[in-house]
Amino acid sequence: MPLTVWTNTALAPAAQARLADTLAAAGHRLVVSTQASASVLAAAGDDPALAEADVAFGQPDADACRRHARLRWIALTSAGYTRYDNEETFDALRARRAVLTNASSVFAEPCAQHLLAMMLGLARRLPDSLDEQRGARGWRYFEHRAASRLLTGQTVLLLGYGAIAKRLVELLAPFRMRIYALRRRVYSEAGVHVIAEEKLSAVLPLADHLVDILPENPATHRYVNARRLALLKPGAFFYNIGRGPTVDETALVEALEAGRLGGAYLDVFATEPLPPSSPLWTTRNCYVTPHTGGGRTDQDDALVDMFLGNLSKFTAGDLAGMGDRVV
Amino acid sequence: MPLTVWTNTALAPAAQARLADTLAAAGHRLVVSTQASASVLAAAGDDPALAEADVAFGQPDADACRRHARLRWIALTSAGYTRYDNEETFDALRARRAVLTNASSVFAEPCAQHLLAMMLGLARRLPDSLDEQRGARGWRYFEHRAASRLLTGQTVLLLGYGAIAKRLVELLAPFRMRIYALRRRVYSEAGVHVIAEEKLSAVLPLADHLVDILPENPATHRYVNARRLALLKPGAFFYNIGRGPTVDETALVEALEAGRLGGAYLDVFATEPLPPSSPLWTTRNCYVTPHTGGGRTDQDDALVDMFLGNLSKFTAGDLAGMGDRVV
Repeated sequence: MPLTVWTNTALAPAAQARLADTLAAAGHRLVVSTQASASVLAAAGDDPALAEADVAFGQPDADACRRHARLRWIALTSAGYTRYDNEETFDALRARRAVLTNASSVFAEPCAQHLLAMMLGLARRLPDSLDEQRGARGWRYFEHRAASRLLTGQTVLLLGYGAIAKRLVELLAPFRMRIYALRRRVYSEAGVHVIAEEKLSAVLPLADHLVDILPENPATHRYVNARRLALLKPGAFFYNIGRGPTVDETALVEALEAGRLGGAYLDVFATEPLPPSSPLWTTRNCYVTPHTGGGRTDQDDALVDMFLGNLSKFTAGDLAGMGDRVV
Repeated sequence: MPLTVWTNTALAPAAQARLADTLAAAGHRLVVSTQASASVLAAAGDDPALAEADVAFGQPDADACRRHARLRWIALTSAGYTRYDNEETFDALRARRAVLTNASSVFAEPCAQHLLAMMLGLARRLPDSLDEQRGARGWRYFEHRAASRLLTGQTVLLLGYGAIAKRLVELLAPFRMRIYALRRRVYSEAGVHVIAEEKLSAVLPLADHLVDILPENPATHRYVNARRLALLKPGAFFYNIGRGPTVDETALVEALEAGRLGGAYLDVFATEPLPPSSPLWTTRNCYVTPHTGGGRTDQDDALVDMFLGNLSKFTAGDLAGMGDRVV
């Protein structure tokens, strides 16, 4: 059955051509929104063309996705799906047997590598060395050698245990760390102590590294707060590659300025772009990347690969076989 | 048999006490040089007390080690052993059945982690983000995401294949990279293509990452030169955690300034401390750490562990069982 595939993702030319050619060869119609954006994070406005689509690939307006009865598959180009993460939308999609997929399989790999880069960067004091390179060109050999750490044997606590966390656990395996992961549904997993929330207060004091990979929803709002930060081991490190609103940024700045934390490496923020006035830019031992954790040079190729792979499952009626299913 | 153990290593108090107590309990005598240094890199001057020692733990003068016939075991506190790496010294030690050990098992772990930190740091553009954090506080989201790389599937060429390289290969295993290693003696190794020098020109053009872990000796002097750098894939990355004199630094600066290399992360230099006037501090895409690759917070504990472990083998006459044997 010929499908109308709507997209508001401004892909790189080669990926765009591959998508268009593959759809045309299968007899499908591709409609590119006049509001297309290259950002997989920007919220789109409503687009009348979406009403004619069977499939939406990109970041369609969430309200419109609920309303348009013809829409049977929403293929998001982001790992996050906050705008769609409510019972009203989920119920509307389920009622017409529509599918929602995200792109966690595309972004889990770069996010996990970004997180390990942050952990190793702080352990080996690379930001301090760069500050000195840009500054006095000192050779603080003794001081830095004595303070350079190994990840080996340390304890890491992951808040959230989805695709990114699972890949991070694989990358950390050779370091023989003790790994805890907080998850709503507790189950046993090789190499990881999966814990429920009631155990969190007992595990926070054990962690050398606290890794926030939480999604954004009412239950996670400012989850990393002053009380939980105070439970961490003195000198522990905090990383956020999840969503900014899951952290009380004021409490984090206080913990860093007081020297209770060893450092923080943050990729996401309550407000993005992070305003130049935010104290997070200048707080000591606080390092910022501009939401680049999911970046990969081959992003658009990987998104098209994922979409076309799922499209063949979708057209074959194999909805259960589709990857990255949310609904 | 009671031994006289000489050391010129100024250990941290707890490690020093453990060394002294363990030796005393076994009836050995510990002589701490009046010229003791906390650096495992500094060359010591001659110390008359060394003539009375059976065992030297630290960085004894190389000429003195040749002369003092009583000295039966030199336990170096560094991975490098350039000052002892000549036939005259090796022959003198072998003639009296003396043993030379280095500390590669102590420093391989931090050096391998440091190298992975550098590789991931450049791949995820962490230095660029820190420069922006210290500068305009921009939010170069699109530019950085599109340029952020994955190590996955890339090709790495290791110059040198000793303890550091072997541990790095373990750390890289989850990234599923294609790994080549240059080594004098070629043998097969799971997960690594070990190559001889005559294959180097054919493999350099395949490498996304060139990792220098070469020891310093006449054969490796300026081994990474203009000709070999020119053979690398455009945009490749270079790392040095071996010894500075193995690189032609002028040729490296030229390759970076010409944009032929994607970047360089260097921990060792032809002259250390790296002089403030060196162009390596300011060359574009060139990043410097002050020979901190081997640093670990628990260095002195690890050195004492290694020494005492080897001492029990030495006193039992099990010279073949001693770890980190050089001679």
